[in-house]
Amino acid sequence: MDKEFSSTLLENAVSALATLPGIGRKTSLRLILHLLRQDESVAVDLGEAIIKLRKEIRYCRMCHNISEADLCPICSNPSRDASTICVVENVKDVMVVENTRQYNGLYHVLGGLISPMDGVGPQDIEIGSLVERVNAGGVDEVVLALSATMEGDTTNFYIYRKLADTGVRITMLARGVAIGNEIEYTDEVTLGRSIVNRTLFSDTFKK
Amino acid sequence: MDKEFSSTLLENAVSALATLPGIGRKTSLRLILHLLRQDESVAVDLGEAIIKLRKEIRYCRMCHNISEADLCPICSNPSRDASTICVVENVKDVMVVENTRQYNGLYHVLGGLISPMDGVGPQDIEIGSLVERVNAGGVDEVVLALSATMEGDTTNFYIYRKLADTGVRITMLARGVAIGNEIEYTDEVTLGRSIVNRTLFSDTFKK
Repeated sequence: MDKEFSSTLLENAVSALATLPGIGRKTSLRLILHLLRQDESVAVDLGEAIIKLRKEIRYCRMCHNISEADLCPICSNPSRDASTICVVENVKDVMVVENTRQYNGLYHVLGGLISPMDGVGPQDIEIGSLVERVNAGGVDEVVLALSATMEGDTTNFYIYRKLADTGVRITMLARGVAIGNEIEYTDEVTLGRSIVNRTLFSDTFKK
Repeated sequence: MDKEFSSTLLENAVSALATLPGIGRKTSLRLILHLLRQDESVAVDLGEAIIKLRKEIRYCRMCHNISEADLCPICSNPSRDASTICVVENVKDVMVVENTRQYNGLYHVLGGLISPMDGVGPQDIEIGSLVERVNAGGVDEVVLALSATMEGDTTNFYIYRKLADTGVRITMLARGVAIGNEIEYTDEVTLGRSIVNRTLFSDTFKK
């Protein structure tokens, strides 16, 4: 839209929604006009849910996951294995790992990855508190579940060095051919890694 | 996400945002997590702008465009040509036509198109008030600027029949090859129409 809207109310709402990533002014206008065609309650519910969430959201004291209490439901669940900590980048990754239903330990949400290009150093993310948790004892294994990117690997190495002396077992997600992917279209680096780290057939399908 | 979120606040915000068209639950979660990383004011501004817009928005008594007063800035502008009314489907189309800077008349926003498939009849959109405006006098021309779709054409014909006896000049947008489009890739119906309605070269480029 190369022209300002005639209504300030409309302009403000469109501009505010367009601050979200991936939402341009055209999309924003389409969404706002949709809201105008709905019952007033739809817009009010949306507005209030966003404000309430942002004002009342709390983070777990232990793992920094989103929580409504001092400890999140995972950290306060006695049936979870407290001796294993899975380190993830953000809150969404907790949900992604939970959805696999293959993990029963606790988490540690870093809130980002080390990225010198973006000015994010180790002190900007929750690495110090991870080291404290491990030093406090009771932890046998730290599973690094970070993205297979340069930032993820940098963060993996940094955490590895920080925890190397604690004697805790440090593991990371297996890397290899994604389930459902054809060998022909798998990139060389992944394929190479999956050959070097090949597993016993009987181990892979033992369950 | 096949799992509910552990936080009700998060669940409510994600669900509310996912009611918008084209925003699924994954996108909604991504946007909400983005908001959580911003200053509190960003989320509060967005929420309040949406609520305020929906609660305080008014529509122009005359043309039904979005307005903050009884009459919109276009209808109340004495330098606009009040003898010409451009009929558009919705508020966004007013902006689109305005942005061409080729039109100086007034508008009439129908608020939809006749669409029997969707249960939208002539009485559900602002056709009656258009006929009243024309009957009130002072109108020389009604420009039908509706989409070149079945619903647009149905609505065009309905309005044409309703206004045929008033003696007002009824025009519609020219249809033909879009500027910048190659003949080779223009569909047959459009190309056929552009041949039948061919214009004098000297007329097209006279300005």
